[in-house]
Amino acid sequence: MLGSTHGTLTTTSRPARVVACGKRPGPVVHGTAAAEDVDVSGRPLRSDVPDLDRFFRPESVAVIGASETEGRPNTGITRQLIAWAERVGARVHPVHPTRTTVFGLPCHPSVRDLPEQVDLAVLLVGDPTPVIEELADCKIKFAVAFASGFAEAGGEGAAAQARLAAAVRRAGIRLLGPNTNLNAFEHFRDDLQGPAIALITQSGHQGRPVFALQELGIRLSHWAPTGNEADLECADFISYFATRPEVGAIAAYVEGLKDGRAFLLAADRAARHKVPVVAVKVGRTETGARTAATHTGKLTGADDVVDAAMRQFGVIRVNGLDELQDTAALLARARPPRTTGVAVYSISGGTGAHFADLATAAGLELPVLSPGKQSELHQWIPGYLSVANPIDNGGHPVGDWRGRKIIDAVLADPAIGVLVCPVTGPFPPLSDRLVRDLVDAAETTDKLVCVVWGSPVGTEDAYRTTLLGSSRVATFRTFSNCVTAVRAYLDHHRFTAGYRSPFDDAPRSLSPSARKAQALLRPGEQLSEHAAKQLLRAYGIRVPREQLVTSAAAAVRAAAQVGYPVVMKASGPQLAHKSELGLVRIALTSASQVRDTYRELTDIARYEDLPLDGVLVCQMVGPGVEMAVGITHDSLFGPTVTAGLGGVLVEVLADTAVRVPPFDEGQARTMIGELRGKALLGGVRGAPPADVDALVETVLRVQHMALELDGLAELDINPLVVLERGQGAVALDALAFCR
Amino acid sequence: MLGSTHGTLTTTSRPARVVACGKRPGPVVHGTAAAEDVDVSGRPLRSDVPDLDRFFRPESVAVIGASETEGRPNTGITRQLIAWAERVGARVHPVHPTRTTVFGLPCHPSVRDLPEQVDLAVLLVGDPTPVIEELADCKIKFAVAFASGFAEAGGEGAAAQARLAAAVRRAGIRLLGPNTNLNAFEHFRDDLQGPAIALITQSGHQGRPVFALQELGIRLSHWAPTGNEADLECADFISYFATRPEVGAIAAYVEGLKDGRAFLLAADRAARHKVPVVAVKVGRTETGARTAATHTGKLTGADDVVDAAMRQFGVIRVNGLDELQDTAALLARARPPRTTGVAVYSISGGTGAHFADLATAAGLELPVLSPGKQSELHQWIPGYLSVANPIDNGGHPVGDWRGRKIIDAVLADPAIGVLVCPVTGPFPPLSDRLVRDLVDAAETTDKLVCVVWGSPVGTEDAYRTTLLGSSRVATFRTFSNCVTAVRAYLDHHRFTAGYRSPFDDAPRSLSPSARKAQALLRPGEQLSEHAAKQLLRAYGIRVPREQLVTSAAAAVRAAAQVGYPVVMKASGPQLAHKSELGLVRIALTSASQVRDTYRELTDIARYEDLPLDGVLVCQMVGPGVEMAVGITHDSLFGPTVTAGLGGVLVEVLADTAVRVPPFDEGQARTMIGELRGKALLGGVRGAPPADVDALVETVLRVQHMALELDGLAELDINPLVVLERGQGAVALDALAFCR
Repeated sequence: MLGSTHGTLTTTSRPARVVACGKRPGPVVHGTAAAEDVDVSGRPLRSDVPDLDRFFRPESVAVIGASETEGRPNTGITRQLIAWAERVGARVHPVHPTRTTVFGLPCHPSVRDLPEQVDLAVLLVGDPTPVIEELADCKIKFAVAFASGFAEAGGEGAAAQARLAAAVRRAGIRLLGPNTNLNAFEHFRDDLQGPAIALITQSGHQGRPVFALQELGIRLSHWAPTGNEADLECADFISYFATRPEVGAIAAYVEGLKDGRAFLLAADRAARHKVPVVAVKVGRTETGARTAATHTGKLTGADDVVDAAMRQFGVIRVNGLDELQDTAALLARARPPRTTGVAVYSISGGTGAHFADLATAAGLELPVLSPGKQSELHQWIPGYLSVANPIDNGGHPVGDWRGRKIIDAVLADPAIGVLVCPVTGPFPPLSDRLVRDLVDAAETTDKLVCVVWGSPVGTEDAYRTTLLGSSRVATFRTFSNCVTAVRAYLDHHRFTAGYRSPFDDAPRSLSPSARKAQALLRPGEQLSEHAAKQLLRAYGIRVPREQLVTSAAAAVRAAAQVGYPVVMKASGPQLAHKSELGLVRIALTSASQVRDTYRELTDIARYEDLPLDGVLVCQMVGPGVEMAVGITHDSLFGPTVTAGLGGVLVEVLADTAVRVPPFDEGQARTMIGELRGKALLGGVRGAPPADVDALVETVLRVQHMALELDGLAELDINPLVVLERGQGAVALDALAFCR
Repeated sequence: MLGSTHGTLTTTSRPARVVACGKRPGPVVHGTAAAEDVDVSGRPLRSDVPDLDRFFRPESVAVIGASETEGRPNTGITRQLIAWAERVGARVHPVHPTRTTVFGLPCHPSVRDLPEQVDLAVLLVGDPTPVIEELADCKIKFAVAFASGFAEAGGEGAAAQARLAAAVRRAGIRLLGPNTNLNAFEHFRDDLQGPAIALITQSGHQGRPVFALQELGIRLSHWAPTGNEADLECADFISYFATRPEVGAIAAYVEGLKDGRAFLLAADRAARHKVPVVAVKVGRTETGARTAATHTGKLTGADDVVDAAMRQFGVIRVNGLDELQDTAALLARARPPRTTGVAVYSISGGTGAHFADLATAAGLELPVLSPGKQSELHQWIPGYLSVANPIDNGGHPVGDWRGRKIIDAVLADPAIGVLVCPVTGPFPPLSDRLVRDLVDAAETTDKLVCVVWGSPVGTEDAYRTTLLGSSRVATFRTFSNCVTAVRAYLDHHRFTAGYRSPFDDAPRSLSPSARKAQALLRPGEQLSEHAAKQLLRAYGIRVPREQLVTSAAAAVRAAAQVGYPVVMKASGPQLAHKSELGLVRIALTSASQVRDTYRELTDIARYEDLPLDGVLVCQMVGPGVEMAVGITHDSLFGPTVTAGLGGVLVEVLADTAVRVPPFDEGQARTMIGELRGKALLGGVRGAPPADVDALVETVLRVQHMALELDGLAELDINPLVVLERGQGAVALDALAFCR
């Protein structure tokens, strides 16, 4: 069922994207775009940015399939659209083959009969495909298709969706849907000020809570319910929203991605413009992935790859809709931090201890306040209470003039960028005054002021009026969501401040290495160890000195040239797990050992019926740390680069990090830093520190292979022995599969 | 500052508990309790259960330091207590040296002048210690001390708290506080029905949100704000609440534990009575631990040990107060599950996909509904929607009679024990009817029905009236809290159903092994490898055949007896990291190698100035999986048993699990199952599966040492080579430190 959606991935008349789905996709489709827009493999380097101004704010709308018959779904939709149009001053033109009016508006038998060229057609018909050509004839640029039963239904539905997508592409129309709704044309409050959230959801209902934030005073500017994404997809809306001046943050609920590359380019665009993207992405589990596929017919992708890709491009992934709301609201409205120190201020030592525990566990820094600042605070706070940070005022000072003094003093501390005040329960004589002071103080500072209103009730005046009435205080209901959002806020600004797009440095033409390497690839085959190592050498990755020999005498000559002690291994195109078969022998120190070993290895291969291309006589390398570096293929993102602990540990601990190319050296280092066993590289039990620079360099060279060599499906260097610092890294063994 | 609180740990005239604090505590204090109440090391085996009926429901209360002067803290407290007494029908007697009346009540100059024997004295004086003896003279059983500045202030305060604790112990009074408040005597709603939450907090303010649950219809029966716990501690209240008939669940906010053993015994008592204990425990981080210590002056303990101890005894640890509320409320009110299958039912496929993703990631089972059940559901739900579970009804069926049919059909499925309906946003035509149907259906089933009301607003009638008005539907505001609570609910019932107290099987007298072992211990010293191995042999843990020799000739004779090939190691009382020093040689195959090696080892030791007691000539053992098993000492819980990957991996990956004795074989197996690298034991790269039974047996024998050998401070068996299944496990090296 998943496979049936693949045919719909390459769409529109814009530069075609690389189709990146299926474990072993076919050859890369090179686009028609100008050379400067694509990398060496024809993958685009810039996001397509559709102009959707008229889509979101059409002046006139045709409703194909309009109805006023009570009880029909189309009637409700027609009514809702007319109400929306009245509010925003747009014109609605009902279209229906037999009706003459709908809700008092003149109705036309077809699009061709409309009295004006409309901006948008809302398609309420069961099969929108036949209508598309007609829309194009009438120069209609945008359409929304409600019908369901497409890719989400699998089989026939997926084929129908492919036909719809093709029709749309031919017509040059931009289509939202199918399997979508009117969320884009709901009643957005226009009385709210400040930067807004723009919302993208693949499921309408899942956007409801973010939409409802308007009732709590958070501005929402757009809602794109993308449904099955036969044409317009999540990435298009991210790209579009990233430069809308009213958008402070983009919130997305994503079940699956239509095109991994397009998503990365959109996220890259948002990062360049420093616009935060906060996303729930379903697919942590097999159940979630399967269920999402039956909902809008999209691939969820391997979750660890999705996770890495999002982090690479600064997309903030959260788990729940409540986190999505709280994080997006904070990021939309808060100004950049001056510094990253967080002060925790509470009317109870317990509250401070608890919040500090959760905050530091999440990686927030709570700097200990300077002695001078502590003395200042002790003017108003009894001396037996700790004000080091967390700051415990013991309660009473907030009830009078001292409360505001304390807040101002904390906000004036140059070590502090964020003030968080957790209030776990209302006690009006204290808490009402406290939140009033916080709201007032927030008006006078450019630092972030957060309040956690922990009461489960939430009808208190201090919450609903004072806190929600402030656009300067970020209000949360749980410690956990506050910690998540503040962490995301600091991370986002740190990330975008240092962001340099890796797409700017992606290779645009084949390197001399690639020319050498391509000659070594054998379509559809697994390369022998020897050939795989030649591939690595072409990219400057060190391999042991070695010779492939086909006789015992040649082995002895090779050993002399390579230098004793040597390693000998059987070499053949289909060999894996050589050690288990006894086809690897180490530390051979004499000509007679080499001669005997040659015979043994070839005997075993003959006995096991394994074709050999010879025996490798290799230099002994080490000692060092055994790592593994490779290329695997992701259904959404295409080639990915992995690095992890090598040897038997790879299987047991699965201690591996992954990145989606292109990425820079900094990401390669971060990747190594994610390994649980990274301390192994630092030198343990007296071993010297390993050459991490050489490891990073190897990861980048492997990335270069992934970017350039379309014919290379998978690569697995294991072990890569990372020698003592300054000594480099050597690929002792490698597997390579060609497409 | 932390250290200064240690002196207060052993308290009261009840059987003394083992003092379990500090990395190297002094000798174990054996209690005065009867032999059958304590284990072999004098540690209690049963919880002390104070009778607190009169504490929580006193008929008469003396207020020492009563005041009616406006603006004084004591005035507010006096007023609050009088109001409480009026409500519950108790008598209040103000006590003050000079006043004759307080708020119209006759005031007495001292406790001795009271007109009746009161149940409880509320101490509002700055130093409560001098009053204690007077209370005892008047046969007053309970007291509450408000004053602060005790252990939480460190130094002098800790000493003052020790004096207060001693006075209380001498007087035979049970004291709450100091550094506490009147939360125990707040206005509990008496109109709410069903099982209640009993609340324990070390910080008053942190209990506010749980207390506020009463406004959402959740019954609360008690609140114990334990403050500094000079006498009554968290464990006492858990023990007491565990058999109160009105208590359905115990919710606790814990900053630190006064006595680890008492906490475990209390949790054991709750587990025996199948009463859930849900706890927030501060101390995940250093910052949290430090801050908690300055708040109520208690130790937080090593977090991984606290975490393990809680899991061993079924305490459900949560991170936030919101999770505490939601989990405790569910566990208090829900009946035991008939089965563990969870059905997810939603009016949107997206909602179902998202919830299913989070639920399965948390380990909940969502069984695929039977074809018959799916056909039944498709009577009412369009065929193109998936009803396999999650069940997506597409929206419309909930608006009419079909809605209830669907719910009843799901609840009737024998594979389903829990129905969760996530509603992310109110859409009254559908959601109002949906929640009404769910509330009605919940009245007719003994299965758990959960609703997530995802709207961030929370003022909707469907939420506040319909859902909160039901005592049968568990209502949540976030997916995440619902998943956490349902997981805890299923885990709790699974745990208590199979619970057998490990205290029942704890050794009560010294084993023959212990008698042998005790002779080997050397107070204050590190044992030599040879002596440590004799200790292991005393407990039936296998060690290699080996001999300690002191001459090259003896080494050669020993090798012949042990059998070639042999391993040789320098042996001495202060030796660690022998490998790095070159003091371990393996695979020696001849007498001449043994003779040379003896000389080399002793030469190195002489050069490094390391005193040796000889050289070990040992049998070569292996191949197998290198593990590490040991005993460490925890400041809260005393001796703990650890197991993990051995060799260099111990340092690099810290892949270790820990348990607090006593624990049974099942826990030992679970412990091994927690290791990330456990697959190593299953056999990788063609290695045979390892003898996990022998590993588990070794862990249990090490536990036996931890339970019996007070003189053994620390033990580290590393590596323990676990051989092929059926072949056992052998301790190749061991370090032992005596107290």
